[in-house]
Amino acid sequence: MSDVITFYDIPSIKGISWSPNTWKTRLALNFKGIPYKTVWVEYPDIEALSKEIGAAPTGVKGDGSPSYTLPAIYDPKTKKAISDSQNIAEYLDATYPSTPTLFSAGTLTLQIAFQEAFTTAALGNLFAPLLQESGFILNERSAVYFRQTREATYGKKLEEFSPLGAVRDEHWKKTQAGFSTVAGWIQKSGGLYVMGDKASYADLSIAAWVLWVRQVRGASSADYQNILTWDSGFWGKYLAALDKYTTPDA
Amino acid sequence: MSDVITFYDIPSIKGISWSPNTWKTRLALNFKGIPYKTVWVEYPDIEALSKEIGAAPTGVKGDGSPSYTLPAIYDPKTKKAISDSQNIAEYLDATYPSTPTLFSAGTLTLQIAFQEAFTTAALGNLFAPLLQESGFILNERSAVYFRQTREATYGKKLEEFSPLGAVRDEHWKKTQAGFSTVAGWIQKSGGLYVMGDKASYADLSIAAWVLWVRQVRGASSADYQNILTWDSGFWGKYLAALDKYTTPDA
Repeated sequence: MSDVITFYDIPSIKGISWSPNTWKTRLALNFKGIPYKTVWVEYPDIEALSKEIGAAPTGVKGDGSPSYTLPAIYDPKTKKAISDSQNIAEYLDATYPSTPTLFSAGTLTLQIAFQEAFTTAALGNLFAPLLQESGFILNERSAVYFRQTREATYGKKLEEFSPLGAVRDEHWKKTQAGFSTVAGWIQKSGGLYVMGDKASYADLSIAAWVLWVRQVRGASSADYQNILTWDSGFWGKYLAALDKYTTPDA
Repeated sequence: MSDVITFYDIPSIKGISWSPNTWKTRLALNFKGIPYKTVWVEYPDIEALSKEIGAAPTGVKGDGSPSYTLPAIYDPKTKKAISDSQNIAEYLDATYPSTPTLFSAGTLTLQIAFQEAFTTAALGNLFAPLLQESGFILNERSAVYFRQTREATYGKKLEEFSPLGAVRDEHWKKTQAGFSTVAGWIQKSGGLYVMGDKASYADLSIAAWVLWVRQVRGASSADYQNILTWDSGFWGKYLAALDKYTTPDA
């Protein structure tokens, strides 16, 4: 296994992958059937790890210095480290052309825009409740770091992002409306998936966000089970069909 | 010509097509090489015309009653009237399968989402200045109707949507930033167009919005000429390549 791709992911106290952005990469690797090993990295260690393996920064901090995030991979075949889930997906298609295609010919730009449209339509009201709950499933060192950085960004306590009750209910109600819009788009494809009968990266990116709910709230939680019933059960069918790409999950 | 599609469009005082939504249909018909004749309809006559030809409403008014918009087409081949630019584009692909394809296999959902993402990224700040200027290029009856309905919707005078000076400049600055985001998406396709070397409906829908600027402000206006220079001239090249689909324009 020493010559397989190393996939750097963020652990939770449940011992499983949970971050929506790292799930995009895990799903992509599984979809393509590319072997890999997972290395778990706590939040405060991401920057040092990224510099060590030579993964490029993915953004800029408030003070103007580069910021580093996961997912990242290191591929011994090309001796390259790649960061950012979209970059990794494009790299995998380019480097392993004989594996199933994430972006079929001519659709890369469309799929990038699809993710933007999905984010605008469906995720705006999911961030607050899920960020809040994510803060409570991290190991100690990551939990401290996560709370500190998110509270600085949003200017309030994690517990205030989406308090249970009316505020939380409203977030979920708007999230459901957004998912309904997206279900309408997908149902025009003529098949179960965004591109019809064949899954593509657009589907994996949606699944990654719903896996965030499943891993953080639990598969048997009302929050997750409700999603499966939305749009007359469309989401349940859709996610069941994509579930095979969640394995291996660590 | 009596057996060709009738295309219902909204005239301007310049005697040309100008509405971004009807341009989508005109570009689609030209792209596919389907013969048609244009019938010009002033705003206050759209509802009666739509009912007369049997075109479905495209929305709901404030009072809950159905609202009617152009574009609409009547196709004597199928004896069907179709309204809504997206519906018309899908109808044309389905009914004329031997003409060039607007939505190549598997991309309908992606292209619908692309238009949503383009709207969010690039159009938010273009609406105010262009709606304002559109009000001044309509024939008398449409001008009165347009002013009345838009002022009721936005709660201010047409002249206040985007006054020349700091407000208008800010709208254009933000529009340019949005177009730059979209140029970044398109430039990942590996070709000049959204899907690479082949134009598709996504490109025509972008062109339709820029034609709104060209027809309302004029081809030699600074507003239009500036766009051509954005992103190191990308938009100039892109629109020049799509320009052949603007003919015939009436």
